[in-house]
Amino acid sequence: MPNVTEVTVRYAETDCMGVVHHAVYPVWYEIARTDYIKAAGMSYAQMEKEGIMLPVTGITCQYRLPAKYDDVLEITVKIARLTPARIEFEYAVTRKGETDILATGTSSHGFVDSENFRPLNFKKAMPEFYALMERHAQADINS
Amino acid sequence: MPNVTEVTVRYAETDCMGVVHHAVYPVWYEIARTDYIKAAGMSYAQMEKEGIMLPVTGITCQYRLPAKYDDVLEITVKIARLTPARIEFEYAVTRKGETDILATGTSSHGFVDSENFRPLNFKKAMPEFYALMERHAQADINS
Amino acid sequence: MPNVTEVTVRYAETDCMGVVHHAVYPVWYEIARTDYIKAAGMSYAQMEKEGIMLPVTGITCQYRLPAKYDDVLEITVKIARLTPARIEFEYAVTRKGETDILATGTSSHGFVDSENFRPLNFKKAMPEFYALMERHAQADINS
Amino acid sequence: MPNVTEVTVRYAETDCMGVVHHAVYPVWYEIARTDYIKAAGMSYAQMEKEGIMLPVTGITCQYRLPAKYDDVLEITVKIARLTPARIEFEYAVTRKGETDILATGTSSHGFVDSENFRPLNFKKAMPEFYALMERHAQADINS
Repeated sequence: MPNVTEVTVRYAETDCMGVVHHAVYPVWYEIARTDYIKAAGMSYAQMEKEGIMLPVTGITCQYRLPAKYDDVLEITVKIARLTPARIEFEYAVTRKGETDILATGTSSHGFVDSENFRPLNFKKAMPEFYALMERHAQADINS
Repeated sequence: MPNVTEVTVRYAETDCMGVVHHAVYPVWYEIARTDYIKAAGMSYAQMEKEGIMLPVTGITCQYRLPAKYDDVLEITVKIARLTPARIEFEYAVTRKGETDILATGTSSHGFVDSENFRPLNFKKAMPEFYALMERHAQADINS
Repeated sequence: MPNVTEVTVRYAETDCMGVVHHAVYPVWYEIARTDYIKAAGMSYAQMEKEGIMLPVTGITCQYRLPAKYDDVLEITVKIARLTPARIEFEYAVTRKGETDILATGTSSHGFVDSENFRPLNFKKAMPEFYALMERHAQADINS
Repeated sequence: MPNVTEVTVRYAETDCMGVVHHAVYPVWYEIARTDYIKAAGMSYAQMEKEGIMLPVTGITCQYRLPAKYDDVLEITVKIARLTPARIEFEYAVTRKGETDILATGTSSHGFVDSENFRPLNFKKAMPEFYALMERHAQADINS
């Protein structure tokens, strides 16, 4: 099920064009997927302690409408694809209470061992959490 | 002709994974295209004063190898596509003196009027600079 | 009355020392004073629209204990001093549910006209809001 | 001898007030002291590899005049105080080729063991580099 994270635009996140700087969106997407993982019953901080990292291997962002200082935004995130080696999330940004999409994006990640940064099989490393994520992914892809 | 911008990784640009945070790359790409525009004979600050902005409509980043604190990096940038309404840049990041590509990326931009944020025809608005950019774009696409 | 703002540490806010980068705290302080002003019945975004800006003229930060990724923090803010020309805020950072102070700080601001960046007399410009802030300031200084 | 580091203002470093956001200055100060340490014959990255960290224990910034996008700035840094346990730097920001001071600041640091974050005696840990820093400090304080 897609998860929604609320962020209020910080002054420091705007630029002299008067709107949010484009490099801020990937930071919001990261917060949103952290919340997604928490909502699924686990924290990313916890994953890192258990030796698994989820480095970003790619991102895309499409900007449609600007966000401004103090705007209350909703970042909707869902899983677009999950394999034992990789996960991909999709994002959409709207103003709270509105439906116009300000921006969309994706992020791709590999599961790696935090000791040596080598790829690992997430399904084997954490079978229960993988099964949980798989159910979420299935629900998201159908949503 | 592709332009190369040197950046030294700042401490503040790293994260607790020990490497550069992925949202920093679009910031570097922006510096690189600013330098590209300067090297082509005009500054982006100047463009804004003349009433033209180049907001980002989309970005992509692919991360292959991590960059670390104090690394001296080279951001290579070239024009991938130019029309009177839009421009697209391509980026590649390497460590200075090395050939391994750490990251690649693209950014897409529309030319807009800085008064009203409406799209404008860059070729009509600044014919000489457009002709200059077109020669650069041609050289880049052939490079 | 001091106001408390909750922030959850973002991955992008940490650095390769494994803790939050020191330049992030002034950003949190800014969020906290924005919330303080809102809680007092006005938004800073609204102030800017009415032609008044509150640029920072000075900051101090003292760092006692590190904050880490995903920590839920409380930023407590109060007014330390208010005159028609200037305002000073004081900040303290703790982990939610704990009493150890991680960091403290101050910020000083002048009231300026957003048209020309010239100092203005906030008491004359917005007498009602000034009276409100004065009551808050008095309560904070006594707290 | 004071060291001078040049930085060009990035678009992402500005905010919707049209000028550089105040939280950016500590980031520049950090770059400037990194360069200072390099100019003194050692890199901070190297120090960390040898097991010594220099966490920030306090900062101050005073803002006099705004810096704008694409400004070429000079950050002048010198040692204000050095003991075997602590070091303090002083900073001043000017536009290149101008003398008006845009901002000043200080940062205080403790020398700590990077394994356990415990304070260490820098003079004992790296006597030669300490002696070098002491000569620099003496020259700075006299400058």
